[in-house]
Amino acid sequence: MTDPLALVAPGAMGAALGARLVAHGVPVLTALEGRSASSRARAEAAGLRVVATGELMQARWFLSVVPPAQAMALAREFAGWCQGVVRPPVFVDLNAINPDTAVQVQAVIEAAGARFVDGCILGFPPKGDAPGPTIYLSDDAAELATLLQAHGLQARTLRGGVGAASALKMAYAGINKGVALLGAAMALAAQRHDAGDALRAALGQTHPALLAQLDHALPDLLPKARRWAPEMEEIAAFMGPERPEAGIYTALAAHCRALADDLDGAGKAAAVLRAFPAI
Amino acid sequence: MTDPLALVAPGAMGAALGARLVAHGVPVLTALEGRSASSRARAEAAGLRVVATGELMQARWFLSVVPPAQAMALAREFAGWCQGVVRPPVFVDLNAINPDTAVQVQAVIEAAGARFVDGCILGFPPKGDAPGPTIYLSDDAAELATLLQAHGLQARTLRGGVGAASALKMAYAGINKGVALLGAAMALAAQRHDAGDALRAALGQTHPALLAQLDHALPDLLPKARRWAPEMEEIAAFMGPERPEAGIYTALAAHCRALADDLDGAGKAAAVLRAFPAI
Repeated sequence: MTDPLALVAPGAMGAALGARLVAHGVPVLTALEGRSASSRARAEAAGLRVVATGELMQARWFLSVVPPAQAMALAREFAGWCQGVVRPPVFVDLNAINPDTAVQVQAVIEAAGARFVDGCILGFPPKGDAPGPTIYLSDDAAELATLLQAHGLQARTLRGGVGAASALKMAYAGINKGVALLGAAMALAAQRHDAGDALRAALGQTHPALLAQLDHALPDLLPKARRWAPEMEEIAAFMGPERPEAGIYTALAAHCRALADDLDGAGKAAAVLRAFPAI
Repeated sequence: MTDPLALVAPGAMGAALGARLVAHGVPVLTALEGRSASSRARAEAAGLRVVATGELMQARWFLSVVPPAQAMALAREFAGWCQGVVRPPVFVDLNAINPDTAVQVQAVIEAAGARFVDGCILGFPPKGDAPGPTIYLSDDAAELATLLQAHGLQARTLRGGVGAASALKMAYAGINKGVALLGAAMALAAQRHDAGDALRAALGQTHPALLAQLDHALPDLLPKARRWAPEMEEIAAFMGPERPEAGIYTALAAHCRALADDLDGAGKAAAVLRAFPAI
């Protein structure tokens, strides 16, 4: 019997990771105090065992899988739960935070007497038979990588200490999501001039793999655009505000919000992006 | 014997297009008044026939292949040359200008009594046996497309009238060059955190074609970055300043200038981008 693992993860990614581990025989503990009804529903559907926070503290590993804006808040909650606990879990931050934020989270965790591991998740939530995303962990967490790898997930270690996994996540998302958002901006602009089909034809001739990626990403990003906005701002912070590249990601965040507002409103841009793969 | 074609094109793309046509038996006329010594050298190496501007006016087609900032200036020069000419050439604008600028160029050309055709060039200059770029022309220039296609170049027509070819160029360049510039920003940021190799490995696993594109583009864009900056600003204008997407391209223009300044100066970023394919 594998030791239980603690996971606080209100969203789709965390629930899917938890479900995969449960299906492979790992007991996954979670706490839901202060969480929403949909977080509860996802946790129960995933087969997670809902416990009081005190019981979470008995796990050897504690995985934080939350939106970037909540990463520090969860770290502070965890620090509070550590009070009086002799051997708290290792706190593993898997969030899309920039390396500076990771160092700040590390400080909070270590001040509470717990160990901190920097990590990240690249890819989509695991689903069905697909292998799912890859979890990257700093190389002092090789034991956890082996455990995850043995129980249905893909995990690797990364040299470089605290910040390297966060930097990898920022750069990978900056390319992957950045490309999707640039593609959306250009598809919308081309369609305003009735040139969307010519753009598809030209891209298909010279960049067929990129076109296939956009065909998937453009309809797919619509419901995610609201969530991506703060992630783009986290990438801008990762660049450093003094660099001109930071402005690219600040503008991508504004573009995300405009797409999300359109989806909640008139839906004109959304209709164009949904139709793009078939024009 | 094919009728001569007029081409004013001081740069590498125009010279290469001209050389390809000359090699396929089309006489290509050009004028060099007010052009630089390197423009002259390129024109002569390409086998273009240097004539006075009056003689250019005897051609049936006049191709404008200049940096976007010079497109309007050349149109005004051409309008001057048209004075007293009974049947001036059709003015074909193949430049990376936004659709609004294309409409303004059209007005200048038509006021001078000549016909205007909107077009664009997608891809790299033709070289050796490679097919070279594709020239897109509005569908009222089918005759020119047939001529180019019969003489060593790839050409297609595009429905949509004036503005469609310009919109296609903007959107295609906005994706193609935008992806390269995002990749450069992220490769530099990842390397600052010693995570460049992890980024390569992760991209290679999930996006092998995109990684291959970046491996080519990152070293390749360095000498082009200075020239790309105004092209990114043209794309920002194409979006319309009121849209948040415009800010993406304004920031990409600033990123281009920073890369060009680095190349002219300390060369630290240039060294990282050159090394990227081999880390």
